[in-house]
Amino acid sequence: MSDQVKYLLDESRLPKAWYNIAADLPKPLPAVLHPGTGKPIGPADLEPLFPMELILQEVTQEREVPIPEPVREVYRQWRPSPLFRARRLEKALDTPAHIYYKYEGVSPAGSHKPNTAVPQAFESKRAGVRRIVTETGAGQWGSSLAMAGSLFGVEIEVFMVRCSYNQKPYRRALMEAYGARCVASPSMETNSGRTILAHRDDHPGSLGIAISEAVEVAAQSADTKYALGSVLNHVLLHQTVLGLEAMEQMEMAGEGPDVIVGCTGGGSNFAGIAFPFLGAKLRGGSNVRLIAVEPAACPSLTRGRYAYDFGDTAHLTPLVKMHTLGSTFTPPGFHAGGLRYHGMAPMVSHVAQLGLLEARSYHQIGCFQAGITFAKAEGIIPAPEANHAVKGAIDEALRCKEEGRSEVILFNLCGHGHFDMQAYIDYQAGKLVDQDYDEAELAMALAGLPSMAD
Amino acid sequence: MSDQVKYLLDESRLPKAWYNIAADLPKPLPAVLHPGTGKPIGPADLEPLFPMELILQEVTQEREVPIPEPVREVYRQWRPSPLFRARRLEKALDTPAHIYYKYEGVSPAGSHKPNTAVPQAFESKRAGVRRIVTETGAGQWGSSLAMAGSLFGVEIEVFMVRCSYNQKPYRRALMEAYGARCVASPSMETNSGRTILAHRDDHPGSLGIAISEAVEVAAQSADTKYALGSVLNHVLLHQTVLGLEAMEQMEMAGEGPDVIVGCTGGGSNFAGIAFPFLGAKLRGGSNVRLIAVEPAACPSLTRGRYAYDFGDTAHLTPLVKMHTLGSTFTPPGFHAGGLRYHGMAPMVSHVAQLGLLEARSYHQIGCFQAGITFAKAEGIIPAPEANHAVKGAIDEALRCKEEGRSEVILFNLCGHGHFDMQAYIDYQAGKLVDQDYDEAELAMALAGLPSMAD
Repeated sequence: MSDQVKYLLDESRLPKAWYNIAADLPKPLPAVLHPGTGKPIGPADLEPLFPMELILQEVTQEREVPIPEPVREVYRQWRPSPLFRARRLEKALDTPAHIYYKYEGVSPAGSHKPNTAVPQAFESKRAGVRRIVTETGAGQWGSSLAMAGSLFGVEIEVFMVRCSYNQKPYRRALMEAYGARCVASPSMETNSGRTILAHRDDHPGSLGIAISEAVEVAAQSADTKYALGSVLNHVLLHQTVLGLEAMEQMEMAGEGPDVIVGCTGGGSNFAGIAFPFLGAKLRGGSNVRLIAVEPAACPSLTRGRYAYDFGDTAHLTPLVKMHTLGSTFTPPGFHAGGLRYHGMAPMVSHVAQLGLLEARSYHQIGCFQAGITFAKAEGIIPAPEANHAVKGAIDEALRCKEEGRSEVILFNLCGHGHFDMQAYIDYQAGKLVDQDYDEAELAMALAGLPSMAD
Repeated sequence: MSDQVKYLLDESRLPKAWYNIAADLPKPLPAVLHPGTGKPIGPADLEPLFPMELILQEVTQEREVPIPEPVREVYRQWRPSPLFRARRLEKALDTPAHIYYKYEGVSPAGSHKPNTAVPQAFESKRAGVRRIVTETGAGQWGSSLAMAGSLFGVEIEVFMVRCSYNQKPYRRALMEAYGARCVASPSMETNSGRTILAHRDDHPGSLGIAISEAVEVAAQSADTKYALGSVLNHVLLHQTVLGLEAMEQMEMAGEGPDVIVGCTGGGSNFAGIAFPFLGAKLRGGSNVRLIAVEPAACPSLTRGRYAYDFGDTAHLTPLVKMHTLGSTFTPPGFHAGGLRYHGMAPMVSHVAQLGLLEARSYHQIGCFQAGITFAKAEGIIPAPEANHAVKGAIDEALRCKEEGRSEVILFNLCGHGHFDMQAYIDYQAGKLVDQDYDEAELAMALAGLPSMAD
């Protein structure tokens, strides 16, 4: 069939191992530091928070990390996910570019997050963990972990950023349907939460605060661990399953990408699509360009500082070197809740620092516009986060049109927008504004970076 | 792999033809009658409303109706859809039964409705139709037709039952994102609507009223046609694509179903899963039982009368013989909006009348309970409509357990519940009630059946 639009891998070609970019980078990732001593931490320091198997995945230098069979068994429910050629979008844009997208909205939670929720729940169960505590913003991660917990029989407790908890009851309802407990953060259940509420009892919350609460609870019980849905090496590692599939699927399509586009919040879906291709490039296989697209209102890669910083507001986490807006930075409200984090994954930051990716930032209205163009052409309505990648891809396709070049563009459509229709209602009603972050707020947050920041 | 859970067909095995049960039934379907003359109508009578190709599909006696290649091209985006063995659900129920489900939530609209929206939009485009007008209840059908219209370049106008329009803005937003126009029904745009609003200006609307409005608008313009998302023969025909796939997938699994379960509102998803298997049974291939599950609050198959009735409230449609609660019947509010129709598809009714299916009705709370059990075990949260099928399948699996029988149960999971989380919130909060229909209301509606009813 000459007009093929879908590239589907047989179940037997579901990857047997995740890909670890650390093995192929020219320089190692800067060490993680203990906030008290300023010295590099070792696996044992992380044991109160994570099962040892995940800690080992966090620090391994092996290129391939085997995917456990029970994880592959769950993956097989929706993986390998489809890769599409966006022929109708190409036609609508009248571009000579070939546009492909990997679609992660087919997972039960509707996004790429189950790719890491499942192995995290599995390794916790295997390590005898009774309960996992985590944070969530808009709820994509929380609902994915809730699902994975219900499949493996691990209790899930989710600190959900309060403003999302109130404004977005539907992903909360999904978590509760899977049997998870969902708490609005800041809460009275932790010291971190109580301290913040003492200063401001209507605090809307932030991912940094919710992380503090989750970490605090996890550190207190031996049978409870913490889980993070992005940022960490092992999370990015798990997401490479989608990029590895995409590599095989592009081979089926008979061409390789010239440009790969992903949206970045914590960085995991971008890493998932990009790192396997970057590894091949580093090993001499291609000239592919990587483009990370972030929201202009929370632009860690394009406007943050590359420095050691905390992952949370209460400074309970170790220090990691990353592009950061400062752990106290609060972005203005915008609809891509999954991209509202002050820092960027250390590994994505490191790759950026090595000059191996390009970053750009977009305001939200243009992203929704791109999302509507995409929906009308391809039939799938993207999540607001994914719209950043859609716009990145469309902009590249329009550049190709201007330059008369038939490049191959691949992007990751990390989730569907079925839970996010209020954002589309606001967009269609002309109610969205393109807010920028507050320069003074950013300056203050950066001034508050720890002394050992550089 | 002995523990296979997913059965996926290669794209090349996407059916090339729909299956028409009319060819295999022992008795023909009763004729469609003209409401004025009481005489059977012919294809020409339907021409103001439908493209001729769809009318021919409505009346054909051919066993196989070819699927046009442009329709197959769009189908291929999400078809063949997966068939799953619900191993974790079997374990949770501790049943010796084997439970399989066909999953239609992978379509861009999240339900089975695009299976018919796509061919309807395609045939309209091919016939030079500028605009299609339709009705929708909860919005599954309207959003699917909106999507199909945007893909083929046909304008879509949707009369949406007013209470859903107000209470469920998200599927409306989805229609509008695809570029459709969405009007709350009853509206001031039609005679049918104005007449009703003159009597009661806060009328909550009904599917029957919305059909009247859509039919009225379509009949007025030569370049405008009407479309229906269920009930009609050609709609059921289009849905057989899913059952034909399921037959091949059950073959891959190495067993055949003893019981097939589907939920019924208008009847199309039930027909889609059941008719291809029923055809094989009629041709001597199996002993499969078919179970149609409907809501106790709108029980056309179990409590309706098999009689000639109108499809709409204003009596603009032809008369069809079906199980009906009367065209003025208004069911009490319940959450499976897709099942709130006074009639049953004539072909499903005919099959029931021939003793070829069993019908049962369930109250909603038990259905949501079944949906939660399913979500926790299988990871997918079903649409409230689909929960009726889930409960039907679970009840059969529990019967098997009691009887110590290892039967094979197949059901159609016709859509995901991502747009329906308010219903789950209400369920979890204990706010749902198991309403019955009003006996007096039903008696009155049945008394109003047309004189030529039997």
